[in-house]
Amino acid sequence: MRKFSRDAQGLVGQPMFNFLAEIKALELATGKPVLHFEIGDPLWDTPLPVINQAAGSMLRGRTHYVQSTGTPELKEAVCRETEKRLGFTPTPDQVLIAPANSIIYLAIRCLVDRGEAVCYPDPGFPTYRAAVACTGVRGLPVPLYEKNDFAMQAKDIPHDRHTRLIIINSPQNPTGAVLIRADVWHLYEEATRRDCYLLSDETYSRLTYGASHDSPSCHDLCRERVIILNSFSKTYSMTGWRLGYAIGPAEVIAKMGLLFQTICSCLPAFIQDAGITALTSHDVEEWVGNITHDLRFARDQMVALLNTLPGVSCRMPAGAFYVFPNIQGTHLTGKEFAQLMLHEAGVGVLPGSDFGERGEGYVRLSYAVRPETITEACEAMRRVLLARSL
Amino acid sequence: MRKFSRDAQGLVGQPMFNFLAEIKALELATGKPVLHFEIGDPLWDTPLPVINQAAGSMLRGRTHYVQSTGTPELKEAVCRETEKRLGFTPTPDQVLIAPANSIIYLAIRCLVDRGEAVCYPDPGFPTYRAAVACTGVRGLPVPLYEKNDFAMQAKDIPHDRHTRLIIINSPQNPTGAVLIRADVWHLYEEATRRDCYLLSDETYSRLTYGASHDSPSCHDLCRERVIILNSFSKTYSMTGWRLGYAIGPAEVIAKMGLLFQTICSCLPAFIQDAGITALTSHDVEEWVGNITHDLRFARDQMVALLNTLPGVSCRMPAGAFYVFPNIQGTHLTGKEFAQLMLHEAGVGVLPGSDFGERGEGYVRLSYAVRPETITEACEAMRRVLLARSL
Repeated sequence: MRKFSRDAQGLVGQPMFNFLAEIKALELATGKPVLHFEIGDPLWDTPLPVINQAAGSMLRGRTHYVQSTGTPELKEAVCRETEKRLGFTPTPDQVLIAPANSIIYLAIRCLVDRGEAVCYPDPGFPTYRAAVACTGVRGLPVPLYEKNDFAMQAKDIPHDRHTRLIIINSPQNPTGAVLIRADVWHLYEEATRRDCYLLSDETYSRLTYGASHDSPSCHDLCRERVIILNSFSKTYSMTGWRLGYAIGPAEVIAKMGLLFQTICSCLPAFIQDAGITALTSHDVEEWVGNITHDLRFARDQMVALLNTLPGVSCRMPAGAFYVFPNIQGTHLTGKEFAQLMLHEAGVGVLPGSDFGERGEGYVRLSYAVRPETITEACEAMRRVLLARSL
Repeated sequence: MRKFSRDAQGLVGQPMFNFLAEIKALELATGKPVLHFEIGDPLWDTPLPVINQAAGSMLRGRTHYVQSTGTPELKEAVCRETEKRLGFTPTPDQVLIAPANSIIYLAIRCLVDRGEAVCYPDPGFPTYRAAVACTGVRGLPVPLYEKNDFAMQAKDIPHDRHTRLIIINSPQNPTGAVLIRADVWHLYEEATRRDCYLLSDETYSRLTYGASHDSPSCHDLCRERVIILNSFSKTYSMTGWRLGYAIGPAEVIAKMGLLFQTICSCLPAFIQDAGITALTSHDVEEWVGNITHDLRFARDQMVALLNTLPGVSCRMPAGAFYVFPNIQGTHLTGKEFAQLMLHEAGVGVLPGSDFGERGEGYVRLSYAVRPETITEACEAMRRVLLARSL
């Protein structure tokens, strides 16, 4: 019996998940906790008003099927949030409520055929590559350069006349880069020139430090080619809730919605109700203000300490909650560095190569952790690197 | 700009969803509540211990990422449940936790290529057809006959040497049919003869009345070709929670798990924790016993009353919570009958043709409603049909 479809043969395990499992196994085996910088999951829990809303909704019977593209109430809240943050109000039929990860898959499936091309940043969020690999479309990684502060440049997008979708991500995972207005404009222009769609992953849009977040949606109000992807995961520490949304041209959203209906039927009503609280509660808004303040402090501390490590140099990122230090001076690969730090320093970091070929020579650390953890981890890594260079 | 991929062009809206929206709109417009028999969503809410577990888990910080194929604890509970119900214990790597709907999509994507064939019951759960249509594989409906009590027969499966997957469903939606052991064996044999996979949708396995539920998994312990699909939706009235599981050959489950990781990352930990309570709590088990008792009573009442309607004849189904009466004696199509009942009797029923071509001449009613609603609705439908035949 031939076992799998052509698509299934293209499925790639994300190396990140294997490494996360390795770290857990090590903790279990040694009984020694690892200092966790490896996962893009803030240390803090979901704010209480959000949890209370979900619990209250369940008790009020919001445990039945709801509309497959999202409840009208959450769609409405998303429209108001978009008005507030981006200055335009989408219509409800431009909005799809779905897990943010799934939106990447839905967009590729609905817009791109086998053999056509999708451009995405390298290094970049691994799901772009994984979704491309299992749909049989061609992935065209767009190199990001440290000399440009890792900002994606339109001129670096490979020429390919079968490009159907360009994915951009600002603030960026894993580099923390934030695109400036001119960069965003050039990327939008490039998408227009190729007459293709532009998926703007704005998962970290609320997490910038000094820099402003610019969205290509200002150019077409998501009516022609821009599809915004946003998520509740990072801003509200709701990573495990699997709640996000897309805003795009109504006919594209309709197709993505139909595919989501076929795959998942709908998202739980009580989770969508909790999403409304996240977007509208004053207490939650204050909470976001506080964590953004703390994250800025953590970033500054992290960058300063990393720059004291021999062979390591780290730029100051303007957004998200990651640093992406250059470790080429240690003469270790990212994987070697990550293994060394895990086993010798008890610190979990991810090799940059988990985010694409261009990530080699770098590692990613999440600084959504306690300040004392940052001090302790950097001290431990410093000791290991110094001992090695003796 | 050419808008959509080939797959997206195959996306079909399920007519059921449009009709559900029409019913809601009518209720809003007239202010008169409709008696709802149209949706496969029990009237009662999720049992309290399940809700309390979810709320408690959220408060204990179970709001972060977890393993993408399911938490070890829920997988373990599923293995024990399988031992209890089906007499064999799968290994954890034979188990995938995912929404039941998505399991249909994942199985087709991972096992079947464009141009190859999937067989599924007609009439049958509309997602089979929808998932087939948007993946470019060929769907081969297997006709179910009233004379066989709608039990799917191996000999009715169309011959096609490119068959990769046969989907069976017992107890069945929309007919309530329950396959007897010999039928299941012949279907398993047919899958073996064609050397293809057998997806056994056992969503309603706990909801049988007198009949016993038989699973093809007894023949290969899900190690070779049988993939069980099960769901928390119907047994525990958790339709809106989107929780289900697959049990299958480890290498198939691994592929489906990778695709689920790419599409969704994981399911919420607090929902998975609630699933453990559903499977293991004595209070919930007692609750299931009570609703099964009530459903049996509702079924008997429903069938008896439907058989008093002019032009309607209804067989006694052995499982699930649907009846599928033959309305050919009314000389109305299923759609005409559903429209008439909605507008004249204020009763929501679904045309059988929403479940496939072979459903024409029938309608589906869910009897997971209050007993007095059944009496009231049947009386209203009777009045309308009598007035029409005068």
